[in-house]
Amino acid sequence: MVTMGSLPSPLMCTHTHSRYLHFLSFSFPVLQKFKSRPKLFTKSPNAPILTIQNCTSITAKTSSEIKRHSTVSQPDEKLRKLRDLFSIPGVNIDAYIIPSQDAHQSEFIAECYMRRAYISGFTGSAGTAVVTKDKAALWTDGRYFLQAEKQLSSSWILMRSGNLGVPTTSEWLNDVLTAGSRVGIDPFLFSSDAAEELKEAIAKENHELVYLYDLNLVDEIWGESRPKPPNKPIRMHDLKYAGLDVASKLSLLRSELVDAGSSAIVISMLDEVAWLLNLRGSDVPHSPVMYAYLIVEIDRAKLFIDNSKVTPDVMNHLKNAGIELRPYDSILSEIESLAAQDTHLWLDTSSVNAAIVNTYKSSSERFTGSHGNKTKGKSKMHDSSNGQSGGHSGVYKSSPISVAKAVKNHAELEGMRNSHLRDAAALAQFWVWLEDEIHKDVKLTEVEVSDKLLEFRSKQAGFIDTSFDTISATGANGAIIHYKPETESCAVVDSKKLFLLDSGAQYVDGTTDITRTVHFGVPNARQKECFTRVLQGHIALDQAVFPECTPGFVLDAFARSFLWKIGLDYRHGTGHGVGAALNVHEGPQSISYRYGNMTPLLKGMIVSNEPGYYEDHAFGIRIENLLYVKEVDTPNRFGGVGYLGFEKLTFVPIQSKLIDLSLLSTAEVDWLNEYHLQVWEKVSPLLDGSARHWLWNNTRPLVKL
Amino acid sequence: MVTMGSLPSPLMCTHTHSRYLHFLSFSFPVLQKFKSRPKLFTKSPNAPILTIQNCTSITAKTSSEIKRHSTVSQPDEKLRKLRDLFSIPGVNIDAYIIPSQDAHQSEFIAECYMRRAYISGFTGSAGTAVVTKDKAALWTDGRYFLQAEKQLSSSWILMRSGNLGVPTTSEWLNDVLTAGSRVGIDPFLFSSDAAEELKEAIAKENHELVYLYDLNLVDEIWGESRPKPPNKPIRMHDLKYAGLDVASKLSLLRSELVDAGSSAIVISMLDEVAWLLNLRGSDVPHSPVMYAYLIVEIDRAKLFIDNSKVTPDVMNHLKNAGIELRPYDSILSEIESLAAQDTHLWLDTSSVNAAIVNTYKSSSERFTGSHGNKTKGKSKMHDSSNGQSGGHSGVYKSSPISVAKAVKNHAELEGMRNSHLRDAAALAQFWVWLEDEIHKDVKLTEVEVSDKLLEFRSKQAGFIDTSFDTISATGANGAIIHYKPETESCAVVDSKKLFLLDSGAQYVDGTTDITRTVHFGVPNARQKECFTRVLQGHIALDQAVFPECTPGFVLDAFARSFLWKIGLDYRHGTGHGVGAALNVHEGPQSISYRYGNMTPLLKGMIVSNEPGYYEDHAFGIRIENLLYVKEVDTPNRFGGVGYLGFEKLTFVPIQSKLIDLSLLSTAEVDWLNEYHLQVWEKVSPLLDGSARHWLWNNTRPLVKL
Repeated sequence: MVTMGSLPSPLMCTHTHSRYLHFLSFSFPVLQKFKSRPKLFTKSPNAPILTIQNCTSITAKTSSEIKRHSTVSQPDEKLRKLRDLFSIPGVNIDAYIIPSQDAHQSEFIAECYMRRAYISGFTGSAGTAVVTKDKAALWTDGRYFLQAEKQLSSSWILMRSGNLGVPTTSEWLNDVLTAGSRVGIDPFLFSSDAAEELKEAIAKENHELVYLYDLNLVDEIWGESRPKPPNKPIRMHDLKYAGLDVASKLSLLRSELVDAGSSAIVISMLDEVAWLLNLRGSDVPHSPVMYAYLIVEIDRAKLFIDNSKVTPDVMNHLKNAGIELRPYDSILSEIESLAAQDTHLWLDTSSVNAAIVNTYKSSSERFTGSHGNKTKGKSKMHDSSNGQSGGHSGVYKSSPISVAKAVKNHAELEGMRNSHLRDAAALAQFWVWLEDEIHKDVKLTEVEVSDKLLEFRSKQAGFIDTSFDTISATGANGAIIHYKPETESCAVVDSKKLFLLDSGAQYVDGTTDITRTVHFGVPNARQKECFTRVLQGHIALDQAVFPECTPGFVLDAFARSFLWKIGLDYRHGTGHGVGAALNVHEGPQSISYRYGNMTPLLKGMIVSNEPGYYEDHAFGIRIENLLYVKEVDTPNRFGGVGYLGFEKLTFVPIQSKLIDLSLLSTAEVDWLNEYHLQVWEKVSPLLDGSARHWLWNNTRPLVKL
Repeated sequence: MVTMGSLPSPLMCTHTHSRYLHFLSFSFPVLQKFKSRPKLFTKSPNAPILTIQNCTSITAKTSSEIKRHSTVSQPDEKLRKLRDLFSIPGVNIDAYIIPSQDAHQSEFIAECYMRRAYISGFTGSAGTAVVTKDKAALWTDGRYFLQAEKQLSSSWILMRSGNLGVPTTSEWLNDVLTAGSRVGIDPFLFSSDAAEELKEAIAKENHELVYLYDLNLVDEIWGESRPKPPNKPIRMHDLKYAGLDVASKLSLLRSELVDAGSSAIVISMLDEVAWLLNLRGSDVPHSPVMYAYLIVEIDRAKLFIDNSKVTPDVMNHLKNAGIELRPYDSILSEIESLAAQDTHLWLDTSSVNAAIVNTYKSSSERFTGSHGNKTKGKSKMHDSSNGQSGGHSGVYKSSPISVAKAVKNHAELEGMRNSHLRDAAALAQFWVWLEDEIHKDVKLTEVEVSDKLLEFRSKQAGFIDTSFDTISATGANGAIIHYKPETESCAVVDSKKLFLLDSGAQYVDGTTDITRTVHFGVPNARQKECFTRVLQGHIALDQAVFPECTPGFVLDAFARSFLWKIGLDYRHGTGHGVGAALNVHEGPQSISYRYGNMTPLLKGMIVSNEPGYYEDHAFGIRIENLLYVKEVDTPNRFGGVGYLGFEKLTFVPIQSKLIDLSLLSTAEVDWLNEYHLQVWEKVSPLLDGSARHWLWNNTRPLVKL
């Protein structure tokens, strides 16, 4: 599955994905340079839907303007209630910003935290709502323009992020508010970096950013109908899958704290908490995590979590690791007391929320009057707050868990390998079923197909959940990169079109993410040429060998070069990190045409390899395997460094019908045949009957004449 | 010829090449991340000389320590005289820094400006001397360690830049001076950015950076023996080669000034002055430029130059373009008077020297008290001084001439194409001569070979000079990337070793730069494998197609990927810009593994394509052609952008004896055969006799069985 962060086209530098902000900053100089070259930004016959949507609307239109013929403007009861709260004591604001996020910068969030969806009616995954005393506006990106137009009432202005002339939220606030206004936010819902950026941007018009710690205004009006926070029991992640016990992980973390001159760290990313504690949860769809904060000090550790989720077994597991429990809501008072003890707290301001960071900074000043940032130098990768706004005794660096979690140990890799084989078996069963149905002319919709895939997967041992919403997309829908079929509106999968299927699962031992593109009838020459060039890029990246310390973006062009030769490209990254029985998207590594992520690919990291091509209103192609980084035994080691390459985790046939063999080199044909041989050898033992037969048929070697 | 800026290994982040500093800043996070992984930095059996030199000396040793057995320490008369000047009125300093540069950040400089060589005795092209009241130290990089050891007297400490434990100049000053000392520099010899960086670094120990405007201390002691500044007449660069007249260039520049809110610009890079005025000079070796500053205002322009170089023809040419003459030395008083008139001066602080920038800033404050930087936003590529140290009315951005000069017009490209064919003819004559001599067993040294090449080139129409010192390197000398053979010490070229020849020429219509590696006997399998992989990288880059807006570094990995597969690499960039009848190295584009240069490759830019491989104590391989960027007529234009590729300028055979055909794909063999066909068709009309025969023999198609 392609990453969210890498989806927006270069024009669409929205600031909603704060963890990916460092990708964007490096793109700007080039764009600025070309400000005066509008031809970059004009419509092209071959551009995918994103571009068209970006470029047709040169100035922003409100959704009420667009819908003025069809919808009568109605007063919005929720907005009225929200605005009533603006003037209550202790609030006193002129505008309120409601982002998509939860307090942990999660990609998938629990329903009770979907405040932006509740207030605006727009249910897309990305968007920011801003409400002033007389206006309400919603920002979203090109993936969601149509959906937002449908879902927003006429009280809302739709802001098409990335379109020319569309302001950012802060630009808009600076425009519509009288100077010196007060803009309220729930500081739990913004990373500290994002809040600081916002604060600075609106300060241009002397607006003040007001942190409302004690009251989320949307929750207030949501009231009784607001879903309860999730409280499913959490479970232990078996040591045979985790590979390293909690005590050892904590001990390594504590050495890092000491090295950094820090005495405690706040871990707020949910997958980091789960990884560090060898625990898994089910608080959100697709990600096996639970809502919690963890504070690790040199001699103790505290988990801030709803007690009701903690079974006696888990309680025991935590106790053995020396971890105490605290209520989820007591995080800020704990931060205050750490500050009072002059704790040098390590905070990753790109992910830890503004409520925590600000509470720490203000408490530090109050209690100790301490000054002087202790952490200059060392890793500054996410370190945007370093050096800003004077000193505190905090250590402001990227979380050390991020790389530790990304570099898989032997047991994690083993779990990933095993779960991928079971996943491949489920897919073989699925594909033979689907081919049969279509050849019998059964009418199956994209959703029905997706549901059946889930059925096959759920029969596999250790299956838990899908790892993201399945992208089951036939024909032109395949060109919508993050297409999500809906029962009411989705298309029928047939033998006349390309079918793109991007899906994945959570198993007890691993996480999968695979895309295949197939044709059930006869593909045309254009489809075959595009598919073959995507495959060539996929092979080139798969086969890459590179020296240690190489950042992923260096390899990105390998995956594009065959498309570039005929003037084609794709507007998403080529690879993202994947967790081991954890989030399907994780950092810090990536393989992207956003050239700012300097994180080197390290032995043991997992990345997706998913080049694609999307022809607007026609078809979409993507071929995705997961790979892990391994050391390659090269005959030389120039520079005294190791040379790295990839090993495949995914073993599912690539449809040879779609390959134009005349374009492939002998080496590329050899790659494909070798891959299919491995697929047969590894997956056939898990299959019998028609699925085994299908696998045999689909792994036969090709011969280039 | 590989660029100086890209030469230092990642470890060798010396700060002498200020124009390339923006390359380095992006490398640091990765290095810092790996501080604790010493295996990156250990000695390897296959590492080239640079690495060995980097890593064997873990802590710095003074040259006197190294030479204590052979040399008796002697008082250094020049140092004594220099130190005497420290205490004269108006100077009063504790240390003095003598860099390599002239006042224009030139790569090649006139002898009278070689102050660092004069004071230290070390004649290498890169180095910085620092003299305190009781110590003298010289910093240079791995290319020059041996030479510096030989040339420095025992009064000097040799600082091996990039070696572990070796401090930077400012770190050393902070270490050896008592807090609050005064460090003197000639502010003409530092770019403003470099001086600001130095100032900040030594401020940590409360040292003050003292600008000595009126007195260069080395010139003072150099006295009568100092060579006179060059004063050869300058000449006009014919419009048929320049393609655009001076009036048009000035007019375009003035529109840029207006757009940027600026009313005048100081142009200090010598190639920029020469390009803008369609003039050429011979003040320095290899670069056809003359010492001058140019100030272009909206309604006038002034050239600051030694009058004696200006012939009546040139005078007339300048007058027609509305350009007045001023003495070279009056630049600062002109800056003062512009500041007094509240001129918003455009200054590229990465190249304009600290004397000019500082005079402007202090005069602006004095005369107008003006504040408020007018230029936030827009291009910030080199813009390190933006936002620092409060506001002046200046516009601090990279020079607009840089890109304008880099993007060649039709006439410039035509001149480059033509001069490359004549250069190729000279090379064919040279190669057949050299092969004959060696087969006749004539003993020729590297210098004799290089001299003979110059003889052949100088017979070609329009020949002016070499474009850099010829690298004529046999056997192990080829592994010294910037090897310069000296008559006394150089090796004999024979039929048992690889011979690497990197050379170029200045012609009236163009500049060439080409490297070929050949064997006059029988190469071994190792040499053939390495050569073939370098060639594959060369072909991959030559054949690359990429979308507009792609920075050069994105393509760098194409040139390395075949070496990487067997654990090999090279420690220099793959491509540098080349001027049209101008400097052989020019910015702003590059193709480098230093990933910070975001300058996109633009249609009309010229780059070198020069991957290599260097095996320490054994051989060096490099294959270099010059290419220009052209639009490719791709069947698609995804994203509505153009797709770019390369067209070759260089047409000299690549020795097929060195190719292991079994490694090449059919497409690669086709590339080579097509290239050699072009070489024959384009160059044979310029040749007769044995050279024509040689060309025929060396352009025959290869057949892969």
